[in-house]
Amino acid sequence: MQILLTNDDGYRAPGLAALIEIMKPYGQVTVVAPEDMQSGMSSALTTKIPVRLRKITSGKGLEIYACSGTPVDCVKLAMSCILPEKPDLLVSGINHGINASSAVIYSGTLGAAMEGTLYGVPSIGFSLADDAQDADFNSCKIYGTKIIDRTLQHPFAPHVFLNVNFPALPAEKIKGVRLARQHKGSWIKEFEKRTDPHGFDYYWLTGQFVNHEPGALDADENLCRNGYISIVPHQLDMTEYSELQRLQKEWQF
Amino acid sequence: MQILLTNDDGYRAPGLAALIEIMKPYGQVTVVAPEDMQSGMSSALTTKIPVRLRKITSGKGLEIYACSGTPVDCVKLAMSCILPEKPDLLVSGINHGINASSAVIYSGTLGAAMEGTLYGVPSIGFSLADDAQDADFNSCKIYGTKIIDRTLQHPFAPHVFLNVNFPALPAEKIKGVRLARQHKGSWIKEFEKRTDPHGFDYYWLTGQFVNHEPGALDADENLCRNGYISIVPHQLDMTEYSELQRLQKEWQF
Repeated sequence: MQILLTNDDGYRAPGLAALIEIMKPYGQVTVVAPEDMQSGMSSALTTKIPVRLRKITSGKGLEIYACSGTPVDCVKLAMSCILPEKPDLLVSGINHGINASSAVIYSGTLGAAMEGTLYGVPSIGFSLADDAQDADFNSCKIYGTKIIDRTLQHPFAPHVFLNVNFPALPAEKIKGVRLARQHKGSWIKEFEKRTDPHGFDYYWLTGQFVNHEPGALDADENLCRNGYISIVPHQLDMTEYSELQRLQKEWQF
Repeated sequence: MQILLTNDDGYRAPGLAALIEIMKPYGQVTVVAPEDMQSGMSSALTTKIPVRLRKITSGKGLEIYACSGTPVDCVKLAMSCILPEKPDLLVSGINHGINASSAVIYSGTLGAAMEGTLYGVPSIGFSLADDAQDADFNSCKIYGTKIIDRTLQHPFAPHVFLNVNFPALPAEKIKGVRLARQHKGSWIKEFEKRTDPHGFDYYWLTGQFVNHEPGALDADENLCRNGYISIVPHQLDMTEYSELQRLQKEWQF
C-alpha cells in the first residue's frame, strides 16, 4: 500500500513521528510535511512566491520531504511532482491540539485531509487534545491502529474525509470511540491589543471558545473533552440544500 | 444599518471600490481589508506574528482600515477591536476572479464570509469571473444591488452564507440569476517545476480545473461560465450525516 503522510506542525513534530510509527506497518510511507509550523493555515495556498522542496531522509519503506509551503501545498506537490501514482491512503497529523467543532475551518491538518479527498484519495486527519510539544501520543498509537484497520476493512465513502480527535488520556482511561457530528461552537475576544516599545499598536490572535451546545452528547468537541475519541465524517460539498430550495422559491429574479 | 466590508485582493483593489459603491447607500460602511493581496488564503489565521492595523480614511458614512493579516484576521479584528457592536451585514469582495465549485475551500473572500457567519452576521461573498485588475464591475453593481435588496426583504437562514459569482459580461448580456448548488470539480497538474539561476529547483503553483460534471445546469461553475449569476447558500456544518449513520452501524468499536 502507498501511504502519504503530512501535518501542519512541521516535519520535525513528535506527532508526525508517532503517525509514522502507526502507518509504517501498512506499506510504503512518503511524508511531505511543512518545513515549519503551519498551524491555523486552513486550506491556504502559496501563490505569491514559489515553493521549495527538500529531501530529508530516504530509507526502506520511508521517504521524508520538507516543503516550504502550507499543508495543502504539501499534498498538491506530493500528487503533482513526488509520487509516481495516486496513494491508497492519506493521513494528516497527529496534530498537537484538538481540531473539533468549527476548528475544521481553520485547521491545516484538516485542510490537507480535504485536499486528499479532492484528489480522490481516502483521507484522515488525526489530532490529539494536547498542545504540548512533549504530549504523550501512546494512546493515539493504540487507537489510531484500530481506526486504520477499520478503514481498510470497511472503507468510508469517497466524497468524505474523517476528522479524528483523541483525548489527552492514557489508553486505559479512554471511554470509547464514537462516530459523531461536527459540534457547534465559535470564538470571541479574538485579538489582544498591545503597544510596542516604539509606541505603535499591534494585535495578537487569541480567543475564547464558546460552546453553542454544551449538552450535546453526539458532537465531537464535547465527546473528546469527555474522554471519548471522536470521528466525524466531513464532506466537501458545503451547499445547504434545504435553504437552497427555500430561496429558489422565495427569491424570484 | 452597520455594514462590514472586506476582501482578499487588498484595500486598494478596484473590486472593493465597486463594492463600496454598491453598499454605501445602505448605511454606515466600515472596511477592514488586507494591506496586500491575500488570494488563496482560505480561512488562514495569523498566529506566529502579531497583526498591524492602519486607518486609511475616515469620512461621512465610510471608514477604511488596512490590516497586515489574512481576510479572516480582518473580520476577527473588526469584530474584536474596531466595531462598537456586531454589524448587520458583512459583504466580502468583489473578488477579481471566479470562486465557484471547490474554490470555496481556498478562497480568502469566502473565508471572510464564513467567519462573519460564525459571528452570527449575515454574510455574502461576491466574485467576478475576471482576474484582470481593470475588470469591468458595472454589471456587478447593477445586480449586486438587486441581490442585497432581496437579502434585506427575504433574509437567508442564519447558519448560511451566500457565494455569489458574476459572469464577466455587460449587464444586458447576463442571462439571469440562479440559486445553485456547489459544483463538483478539482484541480490537477498543480505545481510546475523550474530551476533557479543557482541550479536549485523551485515550484510554482498553477493547476488545471477539471469539471467533474460538465453537463450540470444547477451548479455554480457551469451557470456562471454560461452567462448566469450563481448564488450558492453554503453552510459551516460539514458533517456528512448519511455517512455518519452508515459508519455508526458498520464501525463497531
